Amino acid sequence: MKNYFSSNFRLGVLGGGQLGKMLLTETQKFDIYTVILDGAADAPCAQICNEFHQGSLMDFDTVYNFGKKVDLLTIEIEHVNIESLLKLEAEGLEIYPQPSVLKTIQHKGRQKDFFVENNIPTSPHKRFATLEELKNNTLQFPFVWKSAQFGYDGTGVKIVKNENDLNQLADTDCIVENLIPFKNELAVIVARNKSGEIKTYPVVEMEFHPEANQVEYVICPARISESVALKAREVALKVAEAFEHIGLLAVELFQTENDEIIVNEVAPRTHNSGHYSIEASYTSQFEQHVRSILNLPLGDPESKVAGIMVNLVGDEGFSGNVVYENMENILKMDGVTPHIYGKKETRPFRKMGHVTIVNNNLAEARKTAEIVKNTIRVISK
Amino acid sequence: MKNYFSSNFRLGVLGGGQLGKMLLTETQKFDIYTVILDGAADAPCAQICNEFHQGSLMDFDTVYNFGKKVDLLTIEIEHVNIESLLKLEAEGLEIYPQPSVLKTIQHKGRQKDFFVENNIPTSPHKRFATLEELKNNTLQFPFVWKSAQFGYDGTGVKIVKNENDLNQLADTDCIVENLIPFKNELAVIVARNKSGEIKTYPVVEMEFHPEANQVEYVICPARISESVALKAREVALKVAEAFEHIGLLAVELFQTENDEIIVNEVAPRTHNSGHYSIEASYTSQFEQHVRSILNLPLGDPESKVAGIMVNLVGDEGFSGNVVYENMENILKMDGVTPHIYGKKETRPFRKMGHVTIVNNNLAEARKTAEIVKNTIRVISK
Repeated sequence: MKNYFSSNFRLGVLGGGQLGKMLLTETQKFDIYTVILDGAADAPCAQICNEFHQGSLMDFDTVYNFGKKVDLLTIEIEHVNIESLLKLEAEGLEIYPQPSVLKTIQHKGRQKDFFVENNIPTSPHKRFATLEELKNNTLQFPFVWKSAQFGYDGTGVKIVKNENDLNQLADTDCIVENLIPFKNELAVIVARNKSGEIKTYPVVEMEFHPEANQVEYVICPARISESVALKAREVALKVAEAFEHIGLLAVELFQTENDEIIVNEVAPRTHNSGHYSIEASYTSQFEQHVRSILNLPLGDPESKVAGIMVNLVGDEGFSGNVVYENMENILKMDGVTPHIYGKKETRPFRKMGHVTIVNNNLAEARKTAEIVKNTIRVISK
Repeated sequence: MKNYFSSNFRLGVLGGGQLGKMLLTETQKFDIYTVILDGAADAPCAQICNEFHQGSLMDFDTVYNFGKKVDLLTIEIEHVNIESLLKLEAEGLEIYPQPSVLKTIQHKGRQKDFFVENNIPTSPHKRFATLEELKNNTLQFPFVWKSAQFGYDGTGVKIVKNENDLNQLADTDCIVENLIPFKNELAVIVARNKSGEIKTYPVVEMEFHPEANQVEYVICPARISESVALKAREVALKVAEAFEHIGLLAVELFQTENDEIIVNEVAPRTHNSGHYSIEASYTSQFEQHVRSILNLPLGDPESKVAGIMVNLVGDEGFSGNVVYENMENILKMDGVTPHIYGKKETRPFRKMGHVTIVNNNLAEARKTAEIVKNTIRVISK
């Protein structure tokens, strides 16, 4: 094993948002020197990493030069310049997840093709290079439209119900999927290290805000039968093995009305659906990411207690310097932990933080989560 | 409630060692802007706080000028210049724990007198201004000698068995205590906020390294009867109420052979005996400290799982650039979390980090803790 702890080893991270910030908690715990690249001077990681570099994650030279300054490179966001990563990798830099995996995943068309090629259950899809091409095709309404690239937190995903809805779509490289009726949206995070050790987290259940298309509650463990849970973990494991990826893979799944498990999409990194793990799991997803990319033994992904995560998104009608109203009221409740990402400006539906609610009893946690959600407000003053 | 989260509020901390570093994890989680003063440019907090100032904690002007730059001041070590804090407080700065409390506690003679005045059970003691004065007194061997000031981690504490041992004592302001035979060394952390809300953590049991006089295992919950545990929490509560302190108070206790609980000494801050709380408790001692000094509602101090803490101290015979040998072997064990404080140089018995072992079953955790202790080595290369 390399000496990562209080050593000269330099870990590079592309992206300095909230996922990077929560990763820093773990690299600080292990005293691993961490260098961050982000486009924004006021990125959540900027002040609290060992070394911060400002620059575009999509710029070849910027990413390449950053890679030359570190001993191992990882990401907290998949929208990064892949060509520079491929060159750095060819020159001997360890990069996890691997650039080839990132390249497949960052394009939803390639991602879906990969699932089909590897017999991973997923809803049928078609790829289109332009909106024009899509319109010239025979389409079965309703369907799901996804921008092939740069979609994030529900942007770039639309449900198209009729001809009229087509006019709202962006003219871009995209995929169209059958709309599959489902009982539950689930997710499983898989960790895999270079030695091939692989572990899955328990299945979580996701509930989305109906308008903003952002996750509202993430519930762990998912309230599903054990057989469905096992099937979900099995499918997620199969996806991770197919990619042979190193690092974390968050696998978003649907439980269909027939209790089939199909893959919606994957993210090659720590994920919103795993934030509950900071308080609830023996090993949080962020520590697990560090362990997996450094080829350390993986930690126990099981839970100490039930956990529910509520996203803190900017309230509608407020833009400007953020104020977390009624914070003292949620801090009064047992097992409630707010995480504030450090974005100074709120905007409607902007992800500003999250709150984790843990309890030995999941039903109790669910009750508290609802009170939390109805109490705290993310506004501006 | 003031707006502490992602706001212009500036929290000042005197001291930037490992306790400060673990506190920063919590202020980062809440995005509270945190400014640190420490004498060492390479203090564990230096690179990861929002703003770092280098300067002596014992220098009046340094501490005073630092206090003028922050909105609220706290400490992670009690050996700080009290006169400057009294002046800052008189000028309106909120300082928690209060300078008057720090003044009493940082001097072990005043601390013991305070216990006596407030009917807090403690072993009988005498105060001496010099070694000469002590030697001129009638002494009953064996007794416990403590330097009145600046003792830390067992330095400044000696068991004096005979006349000969007197020659090993420093010529300093000191106290002498009766040596009380005890069954257990226990500790209880108490949190109290400005509104007077007060909460005690479960009782922990401490085991000391026989030579280095440093804690070797901290075990939570202590393996004692419920009635003794309740008595210990009661005594700790009484101490905190007597001080009317704001912040955390770590109360070190002895369980005597008659199951009496007497106070050994107190520390007005987060404490080594509470490190287990990061992984085991609903609210860690570090988050609780932040909550208490900011007059936020206190969190739940109870545990999710049993926790054991093993200090990582420098192995004898090694000085220089630290290497944590066999780290991968302890990372393989479930529920094991190392914390590396970020000191680049190891020395014999220097506190370099700690490892927490959590498990639903305390006996299992205790077995793992022993394997951990016998596996990992803190050496230099």
